[in-house]
Amino acid sequence: MKAKVGIVGYRGYSGVELVRILARHPGVETCLLEHREETGPASPILHAEPPECLPCDPQVVHAEGLAVVFLATPPEVSMKLAPPMLDAGARVVDLSGAFRLRTPANYLAWYKETHTQPELLTQAAYGLPEFYRDQIPGARLVANPGCYPTAANLAIRPLLEAGVIDRGAGIVCDAKSGVSGAGRKPTLKTSFCEVTENFSAYSILRHRHVPEVLQVSGLEEGEFSFTAQLLPLDRGILETIYFRARGVGSAEDLLAIYEKRYAGEPFVRLYEAGHVPDLHAVAHTNFCDIGVTLDARTGRAVVVSAIDNLVKGAAGQAIQNMNLLLGYPETEGLR
Amino acid sequence: MKAKVGIVGYRGYSGVELVRILARHPGVETCLLEHREETGPASPILHAEPPECLPCDPQVVHAEGLAVVFLATPPEVSMKLAPPMLDAGARVVDLSGAFRLRTPANYLAWYKETHTQPELLTQAAYGLPEFYRDQIPGARLVANPGCYPTAANLAIRPLLEAGVIDRGAGIVCDAKSGVSGAGRKPTLKTSFCEVTENFSAYSILRHRHVPEVLQVSGLEEGEFSFTAQLLPLDRGILETIYFRARGVGSAEDLLAIYEKRYAGEPFVRLYEAGHVPDLHAVAHTNFCDIGVTLDARTGRAVVVSAIDNLVKGAAGQAIQNMNLLLGYPETEGLR
Amino acid sequence: MKAKVGIVGYRGYSGVELVRILARHPGVETCLLEHREETGPASPILHAEPPECLPCDPQVVHAEGLAVVFLATPPEVSMKLAPPMLDAGARVVDLSGAFRLRTPANYLAWYKETHTQPELLTQAAYGLPEFYRDQIPGARLVANPGCYPTAANLAIRPLLEAGVIDRGAGIVCDAKSGVSGAGRKPTLKTSFCEVTENFSAYSILRHRHVPEVLQVSGLEEGEFSFTAQLLPLDRGILETIYFRARGVGSAEDLLAIYEKRYAGEPFVRLYEAGHVPDLHAVAHTNFCDIGVTLDARTGRAVVVSAIDNLVKGAAGQAIQNMNLLLGYPETEGLR
Amino acid sequence: MKAKVGIVGYRGYSGVELVRILARHPGVETCLLEHREETGPASPILHAEPPECLPCDPQVVHAEGLAVVFLATPPEVSMKLAPPMLDAGARVVDLSGAFRLRTPANYLAWYKETHTQPELLTQAAYGLPEFYRDQIPGARLVANPGCYPTAANLAIRPLLEAGVIDRGAGIVCDAKSGVSGAGRKPTLKTSFCEVTENFSAYSILRHRHVPEVLQVSGLEEGEFSFTAQLLPLDRGILETIYFRARGVGSAEDLLAIYEKRYAGEPFVRLYEAGHVPDLHAVAHTNFCDIGVTLDARTGRAVVVSAIDNLVKGAAGQAIQNMNLLLGYPETEGLR
Repeated sequence: MKAKVGIVGYRGYSGVELVRILARHPGVETCLLEHREETGPASPILHAEPPECLPCDPQVVHAEGLAVVFLATPPEVSMKLAPPMLDAGARVVDLSGAFRLRTPANYLAWYKETHTQPELLTQAAYGLPEFYRDQIPGARLVANPGCYPTAANLAIRPLLEAGVIDRGAGIVCDAKSGVSGAGRKPTLKTSFCEVTENFSAYSILRHRHVPEVLQVSGLEEGEFSFTAQLLPLDRGILETIYFRARGVGSAEDLLAIYEKRYAGEPFVRLYEAGHVPDLHAVAHTNFCDIGVTLDARTGRAVVVSAIDNLVKGAAGQAIQNMNLLLGYPETEGLR
Repeated sequence: MKAKVGIVGYRGYSGVELVRILARHPGVETCLLEHREETGPASPILHAEPPECLPCDPQVVHAEGLAVVFLATPPEVSMKLAPPMLDAGARVVDLSGAFRLRTPANYLAWYKETHTQPELLTQAAYGLPEFYRDQIPGARLVANPGCYPTAANLAIRPLLEAGVIDRGAGIVCDAKSGVSGAGRKPTLKTSFCEVTENFSAYSILRHRHVPEVLQVSGLEEGEFSFTAQLLPLDRGILETIYFRARGVGSAEDLLAIYEKRYAGEPFVRLYEAGHVPDLHAVAHTNFCDIGVTLDARTGRAVVVSAIDNLVKGAAGQAIQNMNLLLGYPETEGLR
Repeated sequence: MKAKVGIVGYRGYSGVELVRILARHPGVETCLLEHREETGPASPILHAEPPECLPCDPQVVHAEGLAVVFLATPPEVSMKLAPPMLDAGARVVDLSGAFRLRTPANYLAWYKETHTQPELLTQAAYGLPEFYRDQIPGARLVANPGCYPTAANLAIRPLLEAGVIDRGAGIVCDAKSGVSGAGRKPTLKTSFCEVTENFSAYSILRHRHVPEVLQVSGLEEGEFSFTAQLLPLDRGILETIYFRARGVGSAEDLLAIYEKRYAGEPFVRLYEAGHVPDLHAVAHTNFCDIGVTLDARTGRAVVVSAIDNLVKGAAGQAIQNMNLLLGYPETEGLR
Repeated sequence: MKAKVGIVGYRGYSGVELVRILARHPGVETCLLEHREETGPASPILHAEPPECLPCDPQVVHAEGLAVVFLATPPEVSMKLAPPMLDAGARVVDLSGAFRLRTPANYLAWYKETHTQPELLTQAAYGLPEFYRDQIPGARLVANPGCYPTAANLAIRPLLEAGVIDRGAGIVCDAKSGVSGAGRKPTLKTSFCEVTENFSAYSILRHRHVPEVLQVSGLEEGEFSFTAQLLPLDRGILETIYFRARGVGSAEDLLAIYEKRYAGEPFVRLYEAGHVPDLHAVAHTNFCDIGVTLDARTGRAVVVSAIDNLVKGAAGQAIQNMNLLLGYPETEGLR
């Protein structure tokens, strides 16, 4: 029997991607949960083959026996909706930043707003299966990671664990994202004429996603320099990561660390030494692709990490987490 | 001595283009006229080298002795601002559709709103210099043509005048425009992710610009099929125009008609038979480029007409009209 | 047991799309057939999960028992390869223009080269299942239709059959295609800097795909005006088709004709009156989407037809034909 | 009287940009020098208003009295052409990498080819006027800087001179360029379908432009990590530069260093603290725009430097150098 799952925020780009991927998932039946704070027209894809649409109401969620509710909503809406959805018996995968940080103080520091559900912060599992796989199946609430931190943490943490990064010299993560990462709400910054033939940096050194990298990697803020930048394209994140390597003699040495750490991981792909991924390689997939360059003489290393921001950076990873919650094979619907 | 001119609507794409071109015009000093109905941030180009900014107030316009005021505003705002600007002694070049049609009834039929200044409709000159050059210098108010009709009328009218189009079979004008033609106000339709890798038709057979073509060409509505379409690019209009030719034996015959009609015209360029313009050829220029293909055996003809929608389709032509109003060489600032 | 199929021309965009779609097809095992005339690097997608690669040799094709060989090659290569592949026992789906026209004379007239396998022209089925479904299963050789004619014929033929088009006034088909339609071989015309922010017409009135429309629709050349144009995007074809309707009073009347003709067709989708498809609606799908606008007063009609040029316009339709050849459900692997 | 100047390599993107800018320069008359090693069609812009075209022959150069010859050619062609052009009495501005490095050994190390004109290396002035202005007017040969090093050196050198960069921690320069930087010759890497919706890194840590940065800034290779990356757009370079600052308390302190160093410089623009340029700000201009962000607590600094790769990164800077050679105002034709 198929599990029934619901999506709040189906008008946004992540929500549509959830619908699209779940349509091919053999183990679930999907419904849309209409929430009054959501406005704007639905994606045309939903006109073509519309799933069932229900009100986003705890009683309905309970009556329908929804096993999982995806919240593809802004953090302030997710904070409001998570408690009633949980009370209605659903498990929640939240795609916003609402439940990713461990403390209300940290949330306040980076999101500039007081967290209204601080007790849920400690209950939420951080849904990066490659590092927290054992914590997810038993969780009621999964905080789906940010898109930038997914690409960064998968690239950085294995090397930090192996002790081959000179933390004193600092790590630089120069990140570039497609426009869909900014959401579907029309703004001047995401207007076609402002973006085409353009490239721009924003939130330099103070992007909201930085604390997720610090939390997962154990780095101090002063050790990690991060810039987010807007590419004139629809989907994809590519991060170019710079550091000083120590105790390794070649790119192959760094790759060996990744290979050991990610042996058996279905969604991390490694490139041969000197080769790095581009965005076409990961578009419309749940893969994180990683490539390494090392100048052995000076220790300067460059790691390139690429994902599709709407798949491994949002909807795909959320479904990976759903598979863990429901006991399905982790790759179900994602190949 | 330089004439002083003002721009209302300088935040929009046409307004910025006016600022940009006028900055190179040796005969004018430009100021921005701040109007409270305009919102949103100004273009960065205006931060770099900002012209003087004054309130959009008739007394200021009079005191400053503005010779010309450009209205790069929506039609309803232009209808409100034109009378006080004219009363303040300025001549007005309006870039909206407010004063292009000859009758209030026609305006109501296509714009679905009642015209509030019907008496100005008969006073306004239609600012297509290639056909109405003698009416412009003496006008107080110039209605700058729409972008689509500029490309269409320059291509169609000479051939109609020469009688080589079989009107009974109808003329098809398949028009494509860059996104800047839709203005700078953020909308879902003009969001990057909706436009990139996309192409879409809108206002099929009932675009507001159609009556301008009928008015200038003398065609009946039933003889002219027009579709507007959105290209995933910033600027440019290309129109592919189909008709049955009669009384001509070759593309050269059609070109000869254009050559005669446009002899000495500084802003119309003709291509050799069988060659047609693309958008790169006209980008950032005030040219309208025209090319012709004819199948002599069957009489089927295709004319391609291309302009930059922000230049010959808006700001450039407006300055061409300003040059006529102020007695400057028509090409001043536009080469 | 899975049928084994081979792909010649797997380095091109259509070839890669065949690999991609067949990877999800439950009924076939795919191999690549290496042909010495093909050069250039393979698509990165083939590095990630490479299918078996064999020499393009009749003996190998016979020994491996290939049920179907796809030729994603230029027409002159297809003419050379089709006979030995057929002799080796495989059935052939050719994606080039080599076998689409019925007579060598017609081929010479449009392709400007002598056909080297004229006897195969009469044996080949034209692989547009919506109109020739009964001829395909028994064919040894299927000529997969051109991308432009697929979108055009699906839109035009039902209306011609119903007699609602005034043929005397002529039909205009203004066609726009993404760049992948031009193939993967680097040329100046398909270089990024030449295409971005550009739009251009080519092969006006004399595109090689025109005779396919005439052959399927029964139109005379003088009744059909066709222009191909290059969009600054990767994939998608949209055709805007103009004609005079007769004997119909509304867009709904035209839609009713389509609905009747396409009842049960899995890959044709119709839009409500006044609504038309854009390219996002069909990207990465095997659908042909059709929408209609009619000005009842004057009879002017505009039909918009959209497909993904690499799917319904090439690889998808080729697999649809393969399904018919092998007795699989026609939609297998294509949803 | 106008000086006469010639352009070799006018078919390429830099060559066309030279033609375009020089057409507006009041002090020169331009001619094209046809060189047999150049192939491919000329840019359409040259059809519209073609300058005089002469053979690229020393006798012609001498007879015509060309004051300056621009070589917009590959390094191996520039090495061949520079000596005869100099012998013919012209001064040479070379846009390739042939004469930028001081020693043949360095050239061999980075360009992997033996330099054929080593004696010219010591005679050539490095044409970055902001740092070598006094050496240019008297030079016979000017090596126009690379596009990447222009943006990098203008951002880095003032801060190194002021001693506010912790060189021990290293400098990271993450560079992104539009596709026109790769030249006009068709390649798979610069094909539209490969570039659109894509972003890719290349020549990581070993780009040919690196030694120009080392030479101008005095950095050691081990102190400077550089990655070049391809943006899906036509023109523009943006570099995001990371380092540890010392001895400064705020972004304003860093800006004060730039302001002092660049006082009176016509082509360097500085942004307010916390603001950084994007590519639209510099497109089609000869400006280098620089913005600074500093985390005062940890010393982490990010500088963003942006230019138009075809203008300040190539043709514009070459004309700036020509102005210095001919004694014209440095900004002539470049505003």
